[in-house]
Amino acid sequence: MNSNPSNVMALTSTTSNKKETVCIFGTGDFGRALAYKMIQSGYSVVFGSRQAQISSLIPKGAEVLSHTEAAQKAAIIIIAIPRQHYNFLLPLAEVLHGKVLVDVSNNLKLNQYSQSNAEYLAQLIPGAKVVKAFNTVSAWALQSGTLDASRQVFVCGDDKKAKQMVMDIVRALGLTPLDQGSLLAAQEIENYPLQLFPMWKFPIFLSLGLIAFFFFYCLIRDVIYPYVNEKKDLSFFIAISIANRICPVLALILLALVYLPGVLAAVIQLYRGTKYSRFPDWLDKWMLCRKQLGLVALAFAFLHVLYTLIIPIRYYVRWRTNSRVISQILNNRTDPFDNTSAWLSDSYLALGILGFFLFVLLGITSLPSVSNSVNWQEFRFVQSKLGYLTLILCTAHTLVYGGKRFLYASSYRWYLPNAYMLSLIVPCTVLVVKFVLVFPCLDKPLTRIRQGWERNPRYSE
Amino acid sequence: MNSNPSNVMALTSTTSNKKETVCIFGTGDFGRALAYKMIQSGYSVVFGSRQAQISSLIPKGAEVLSHTEAAQKAAIIIIAIPRQHYNFLLPLAEVLHGKVLVDVSNNLKLNQYSQSNAEYLAQLIPGAKVVKAFNTVSAWALQSGTLDASRQVFVCGDDKKAKQMVMDIVRALGLTPLDQGSLLAAQEIENYPLQLFPMWKFPIFLSLGLIAFFFFYCLIRDVIYPYVNEKKDLSFFIAISIANRICPVLALILLALVYLPGVLAAVIQLYRGTKYSRFPDWLDKWMLCRKQLGLVALAFAFLHVLYTLIIPIRYYVRWRTNSRVISQILNNRTDPFDNTSAWLSDSYLALGILGFFLFVLLGITSLPSVSNSVNWQEFRFVQSKLGYLTLILCTAHTLVYGGKRFLYASSYRWYLPNAYMLSLIVPCTVLVVKFVLVFPCLDKPLTRIRQGWERNPRYSE
Amino acid sequence: MNSNPSNVMALTSTTSNKKETVCIFGTGDFGRALAYKMIQSGYSVVFGSRQAQISSLIPKGAEVLSHTEAAQKAAIIIIAIPRQHYNFLLPLAEVLHGKVLVDVSNNLKLNQYSQSNAEYLAQLIPGAKVVKAFNTVSAWALQSGTLDASRQVFVCGDDKKAKQMVMDIVRALGLTPLDQGSLLAAQEIENYPLQLFPMWKFPIFLSLGLIAFFFFYCLIRDVIYPYVNEKKDLSFFIAISIANRICPVLALILLALVYLPGVLAAVIQLYRGTKYSRFPDWLDKWMLCRKQLGLVALAFAFLHVLYTLIIPIRYYVRWRTNSRVISQILNNRTDPFDNTSAWLSDSYLALGILGFFLFVLLGITSLPSVSNSVNWQEFRFVQSKLGYLTLILCTAHTLVYGGKRFLYASSYRWYLPNAYMLSLIVPCTVLVVKFVLVFPCLDKPLTRIRQGWERNPRYSE
Repeated sequence: MNSNPSNVMALTSTTSNKKETVCIFGTGDFGRALAYKMIQSGYSVVFGSRQAQISSLIPKGAEVLSHTEAAQKAAIIIIAIPRQHYNFLLPLAEVLHGKVLVDVSNNLKLNQYSQSNAEYLAQLIPGAKVVKAFNTVSAWALQSGTLDASRQVFVCGDDKKAKQMVMDIVRALGLTPLDQGSLLAAQEIENYPLQLFPMWKFPIFLSLGLIAFFFFYCLIRDVIYPYVNEKKDLSFFIAISIANRICPVLALILLALVYLPGVLAAVIQLYRGTKYSRFPDWLDKWMLCRKQLGLVALAFAFLHVLYTLIIPIRYYVRWRTNSRVISQILNNRTDPFDNTSAWLSDSYLALGILGFFLFVLLGITSLPSVSNSVNWQEFRFVQSKLGYLTLILCTAHTLVYGGKRFLYASSYRWYLPNAYMLSLIVPCTVLVVKFVLVFPCLDKPLTRIRQGWERNPRYSE
Repeated sequence: MNSNPSNVMALTSTTSNKKETVCIFGTGDFGRALAYKMIQSGYSVVFGSRQAQISSLIPKGAEVLSHTEAAQKAAIIIIAIPRQHYNFLLPLAEVLHGKVLVDVSNNLKLNQYSQSNAEYLAQLIPGAKVVKAFNTVSAWALQSGTLDASRQVFVCGDDKKAKQMVMDIVRALGLTPLDQGSLLAAQEIENYPLQLFPMWKFPIFLSLGLIAFFFFYCLIRDVIYPYVNEKKDLSFFIAISIANRICPVLALILLALVYLPGVLAAVIQLYRGTKYSRFPDWLDKWMLCRKQLGLVALAFAFLHVLYTLIIPIRYYVRWRTNSRVISQILNNRTDPFDNTSAWLSDSYLALGILGFFLFVLLGITSLPSVSNSVNWQEFRFVQSKLGYLTLILCTAHTLVYGGKRFLYASSYRWYLPNAYMLSLIVPCTVLVVKFVLVFPCLDKPLTRIRQGWERNPRYSE
Repeated sequence: MNSNPSNVMALTSTTSNKKETVCIFGTGDFGRALAYKMIQSGYSVVFGSRQAQISSLIPKGAEVLSHTEAAQKAAIIIIAIPRQHYNFLLPLAEVLHGKVLVDVSNNLKLNQYSQSNAEYLAQLIPGAKVVKAFNTVSAWALQSGTLDASRQVFVCGDDKKAKQMVMDIVRALGLTPLDQGSLLAAQEIENYPLQLFPMWKFPIFLSLGLIAFFFFYCLIRDVIYPYVNEKKDLSFFIAISIANRICPVLALILLALVYLPGVLAAVIQLYRGTKYSRFPDWLDKWMLCRKQLGLVALAFAFLHVLYTLIIPIRYYVRWRTNSRVISQILNNRTDPFDNTSAWLSDSYLALGILGFFLFVLLGITSLPSVSNSVNWQEFRFVQSKLGYLTLILCTAHTLVYGGKRFLYASSYRWYLPNAYMLSLIVPCTVLVVKFVLVFPCLDKPLTRIRQGWERNPRYSE
């Protein structure tokens, strides 16, 4: 039974009754927060600091020693100082030999240095085992205990044993370690906390662009045209009427864009006769943000539903309804009931409701905790089968809504068709191509290609 | 420090700086995908293959050797070949002795063989330690990194140590291992990826049956009856009006069916005087799919809300409203305001809103990540107390909606009562029985029985 | 290879092929359920019991022995008996020496004893290593396998090794162990299953209080005032009209209360010139339940949306609309279209829709599985930036809804302003203070203080 705390092996096999000692270099905000949490979880913490003077901010129970003394007391040393000061570690190289150094640093910009901080540290002190960890955790969250976000701690390092020791600490603090492999992953881990929804960028910029386009398109058709032609001021249409044209159009286009890359990929695979050539880069990226595209589409569908349900409460709509009734009476004329209109009105509403319902279902199954608890076949069933059914229902909803209006001249003001007619282009294309791909003469070779068959098999040498 | 890689012990206690070597038999799609992911996570991979010829598809960094050579290099061998070819392993029995063999195979049909693939493998090579794993993971997901679904890897095996080694690899690949016990569980694990929402089958088939019944029931009452009696064509009712009768009826019946088995179980326990006799099989199965029944009920309630809110936008409703106003004026008669109607109308709407609100709350708490973060008492409070309150509110909503109409002769066309009257049978039964069970004379013995008390205690011998 | 099962080391390093033996003291409901689950997971279970007589309820495969014999067979002993009977363990002290004792007990009341059950056990048998675990799991859930809730098992203990062994068992049973540190945490863990949504108490009591106040306030203004002044019976307003005044008012006030403590904290930090003094206790508590406050506010916003959308279906509203049309015709007068009213009506509806949409987004990101998968910066962006945007939109929604009515005398019945005017006080205060804090002369020192800067740094000695 070896109780020398600087012996790595000792930590895992004995000293079960004694508290492990962890050393922290740096008494800054993050170092203190980490120490506070570690002491709470039963570790004993020793700070390595230049000034022996003890700040009142050091958590109770922690020791403060010189760097050398502190390093000798523990097998794991957390380097909570900025990268610029790493070279002060050089004189300590000997005492750090064989120790586990945990790099917790972050940069201020993406890819600030060509070499990640952790790799730089490993190069400075080659005798130590460097592990990257804790950089995604906020000091404030550690101290206040409100770890709602970022319970995940990304860990990487070249030494499996050292990584395991760090991951044990992570778990003991109530956090979730995620092994990211060798120290090569450090660059990516250091970039991670600087990113703001990287996967959402493309869908959001795309929809902002589409919103701008369709806003001006509808503004011209629905506000400027009547003003020019009939001198009617319909500027209040901007708040709801135009918003309620943009939302369904975007929801439909974005939903179709979720399924377009899959259809393109199938066409490329059929053409190439193999699934082993890489897709073009843009297609790969597109396929990776399909979930985000779909969720943005769902957001627009949700807004469309709210805007639609609010219709009968609008002052404009109530006024128009009343004035129509009054004009009917004054003209002593009653509109007869039109069965076709009733059918069309009820059908497009019913199609919209069912489409939205399936859309919400798709959204719920894409929640991490739900999608984690279904198996692969179920996930594919929901995202592919139900997804296409949603697209079909939403496209049909738009087509029936259009109804006979496609043929009316009044739908083409200044030769501009209604916005919803433009929105039908992408989904109809996707559905037609998908329909063609379902025919056995194309479906069979595609299935074989996806199972690994190649039209022209290649072997190196 | 023992660096012989075929020694099992070596892997866990030393070689911390060296990459572990994993051997994969079979260079098919899945084997390659697994190798690709393992190399990414810092493992060194060696393929065992009949043809020394290296396919260009083999991931970079992997070696390809003969089966014997490859097996000697690693402690863990992943068998990525179909069950039909397992007997080619027989000549290798000696070199596989003491190794960990990971069976990753799947079948094409449920219970295709009487013996699971993993058990068959263990019987073929009795000297090896067989572990079942990875069969629920898709090759495509491994390679593309889009592991949205099925991060869970079910692991089973008779050897704890071997299982632990495989689970370490699973974790290193960023997946979540779930220990399923001994190799007896392999059959179930092999069936798992072939299943499509097994717990949802009963609720979905039940609701399809009920939909069919109530669809024809409402068709007769609401479309055929007026057509026969008054020659009115109301066929457009199918799209919304009838759907909006079926949805609330199903929501209410299914919600009541969630609470019926609990009430039945209480009655059975009271009658038998013990909680230790097994319930009949159908009751056990019913109780296990209550969550799914409840969620299907919520889906119908959601549709009912959408169908209801869309009402004022319907062409038919707008036409009818207008024609009523016009007829009032033409007849020079104004409908007086009826306070009772206002009360009834507002009450059933308010009850419905509150019921739906609680229903949504129940749905949210049944999300895996939410229900995992509440304690048992909280979960029972929500699912039982709030659940019954939801049932009471929804039943009251339906009763008040009925209002005085229960007594009108016009509600009974061809002696058929309204659909919502039928839907009240099950929930009212559940609520009445539950109400009786709350009385102390029944509640006290029931509580004692549930704490383990027995009217006639039995001991064997 | 040491196969002596009472040796702690033996469990982790050898016996990989043999089943571990776990001993359970007590054959009550919970002991049996745990045994059943353990046998299923491949453990071998031996009960320690006073009566050698075997009850028919003991799960198949478990042995029943005397306490001494049973304890000798295993390294881990689960104490599934009530605290009152713990002293029967005193004569067994010798045989329990060095064993891991797992305390699974719960109390009936919060803080029933000054010393937690686990600490009491540790004091009784000082030679044993006591671990607290499993107290949050329900016997029924273990046996039926419906572990929807409470998969989390809180574990604490002073001996790291012993804790690790227990956590391995927890994982093997398919549950999630959560290390809570030393045995000092036992009191908290024992209190945990007795709590019913502790973080929700303050938000819910606060909103109940506010509901009561605003209900009577609106009752006086909207029902009693017209009855007294005009003898009109508007009592049916209680069901929907008044509910739909209370809900938005509460949603707005509670949402503002989510952001008020942050603003207060900033003011306090600016005033004190440091972030290292503790906030007053009430502010700390308030900050910790902000998420719950926000979710309760979202619930009221959701109800407000439902109550609003249902408006055109209400009998009262339909009657009023019709009677207005009729009176217009009878008076031979048509209301002209008012562009300002159209703008105001559409604007407040649009602001409300956008505010509700962002509110729902905030709610979705606060789901555990979603908030776990975003990084700290993303979480702060959503909860702070989007949160303030939501507050601004909802406040603007209320202000525009008020519109010109703020100046009407009719809005002040009995000198009581409309409820929504009262609801604007808190959000406007928060927004004004926040707006002031954004000015550079205040924002810069605040940022520096939050990064650790102090106006008057203090060092002890």
